[in-house]
Amino acid sequence: MLLTTLYIIGITAEAMTGALAAGKRHMDWFGVMLVASATAIGGGTVRDILLGHYPLGWVAHPQYLVITCLAGLFTTIVAPMVVRFHKVFVLLDSLGLIVFSIIGCRVAMDMNLPVLICIVAAVVTGVFGGLLRDLICRRPPMVLHKELYASVAFMAGGMYYGMLYLSIPETITTITTLVVGFFVRVAAVQYGWSLPVFRFDEIENNEPKKAESNS
Amino acid sequence: MLLTTLYIIGITAEAMTGALAAGKRHMDWFGVMLVASATAIGGGTVRDILLGHYPLGWVAHPQYLVITCLAGLFTTIVAPMVVRFHKVFVLLDSLGLIVFSIIGCRVAMDMNLPVLICIVAAVVTGVFGGLLRDLICRRPPMVLHKELYASVAFMAGGMYYGMLYLSIPETITTITTLVVGFFVRVAAVQYGWSLPVFRFDEIENNEPKKAESNS
Amino acid sequence: MLLTTLYIIGITAEAMTGALAAGKRHMDWFGVMLVASATAIGGGTVRDILLGHYPLGWVAHPQYLVITCLAGLFTTIVAPMVVRFHKVFVLLDSLGLIVFSIIGCRVAMDMNLPVLICIVAAVVTGVFGGLLRDLICRRPPMVLHKELYASVAFMAGGMYYGMLYLSIPETITTITTLVVGFFVRVAAVQYGWSLPVFRFDEIENNEPKKAESNS
Repeated sequence: MLLTTLYIIGITAEAMTGALAAGKRHMDWFGVMLVASATAIGGGTVRDILLGHYPLGWVAHPQYLVITCLAGLFTTIVAPMVVRFHKVFVLLDSLGLIVFSIIGCRVAMDMNLPVLICIVAAVVTGVFGGLLRDLICRRPPMVLHKELYASVAFMAGGMYYGMLYLSIPETITTITTLVVGFFVRVAAVQYGWSLPVFRFDEIENNEPKKAESNS
Repeated sequence: MLLTTLYIIGITAEAMTGALAAGKRHMDWFGVMLVASATAIGGGTVRDILLGHYPLGWVAHPQYLVITCLAGLFTTIVAPMVVRFHKVFVLLDSLGLIVFSIIGCRVAMDMNLPVLICIVAAVVTGVFGGLLRDLICRRPPMVLHKELYASVAFMAGGMYYGMLYLSIPETITTITTLVVGFFVRVAAVQYGWSLPVFRFDEIENNEPKKAESNS
Repeated sequence: MLLTTLYIIGITAEAMTGALAAGKRHMDWFGVMLVASATAIGGGTVRDILLGHYPLGWVAHPQYLVITCLAGLFTTIVAPMVVRFHKVFVLLDSLGLIVFSIIGCRVAMDMNLPVLICIVAAVVTGVFGGLLRDLICRRPPMVLHKELYASVAFMAGGMYYGMLYLSIPETITTITTLVVGFFVRVAAVQYGWSLPVFRFDEIENNEPKKAESNS
């Protein structure tokens, strides 16, 4: 099936971004596999835990875990090449984002959850992998700071839900969402579209100053 | 119902503290909504996941999620005012803590869990939202360092459980716990009550020195 | 039963390492109890949440939570001694790792999960406690950087599964896995065995530079 093929491409690409982040922190092979897997399948895992949707995808299909671990280890060999093909990477990552969003929305719809939760499921599936990667690697979560990422997942989820709600056939809905979502995401990267940033630098009195200075 | 009204006030206040923390990290609007929601409903979410209590509150009632997202975005506009009304804020936050603790204890009691787990559920509901906020915003978790916060949640949970156990009517129990808990928390802030701190600065040999110096 | 006794020794030792980490961050008593408990029973908790295995161990048996909290508080008194008996500590920690791995594998096997998931359950149970400790204490996760830790859990899980699969009696399987796993772990510490490290220091263009410099 189209979605499964694209899903495997998506988790492979995400696992590779996770492995590169682990490499920047000089992690060992286990760390590389853990961060690769958390990046690739962490979003779906968090979604399933939040929705109580068991068994988790990779528990039912351990082969996905094998793919993410191997993709992580493979990245330790081809890392310099990955950087050179950076543009291909951005495209695969964009594709992955939309595929994850569609799958997340689908899972919530199959559980007959309200529309808002279906869209939240799309966003969680799309962005929590990268969020986990950045938390484990102790760097500022990129998805909370830059570019349209969560917004694209939100749009893709809403579009997919809306088209199915209007009784448009599933294949057409999936392909339309994929194509539109993909181009919006690529355009967002290309033209640097982003959400407004909230800066709040005023200093409050009840901050734990001393502890902060240790960090 | 009283508890629902107070709960909505509580999640609104907590969402605003989350949004301010996100603003200090210069997050975009999505980051603001995520941190606001994690702060406000993260405690109940962690509790429900730990207890296997599905569906999660905000999945069954998505309107709570709408409230926390809107409260977060609203904060980006009124941030300077929030600082000026800092004292009102502390009062609302204190109220929220007790309301969260009561609800957490109630959920565990409805599941017929042992008394210790009911009190732990109160503490988790009360403090994990702030803990998640601080982890996502990469700052020292305030709840682990300063002031009586978890202790007040512990006391409120124990009091609520104990009074119901003694067959005191639920309305009286709820109101008494609210009033006593609120004043203990406000007094703790006012007089700087806190738990003893454990300092352990001796240097062990098996620390990952080099990695630590990167942080 | 042997495994229960060793489990209690294991969570006590792990709780103490958690408390020491909390002390280095100058946490208060609540922080100490939280980090101690997360270190000791966090691995099993994450495993059970991932597998949908409810109720969690410590919810069904709150006495384990009492043990980890008391061990944490006890550590605030005996901390200097703990350092002096550092070697005993490493031995108990190694024992704990193998016991956790065996229990994790056992739980997954009782749920009739595929072999790979049983071994992943062993690794998660063995290493996620320490990972949570390091995330909460905001230090580089030791388990992702140094020494054979996850690998030993992997080996112990695989050995336990394999021997049972070959119809070797459970008592013999448990004791053999304990003894072999323990010595491999101690040897790994003694001789500094470790997995290869992946270093990737090339600078990408799409990093959130400014945000990173705040950290």
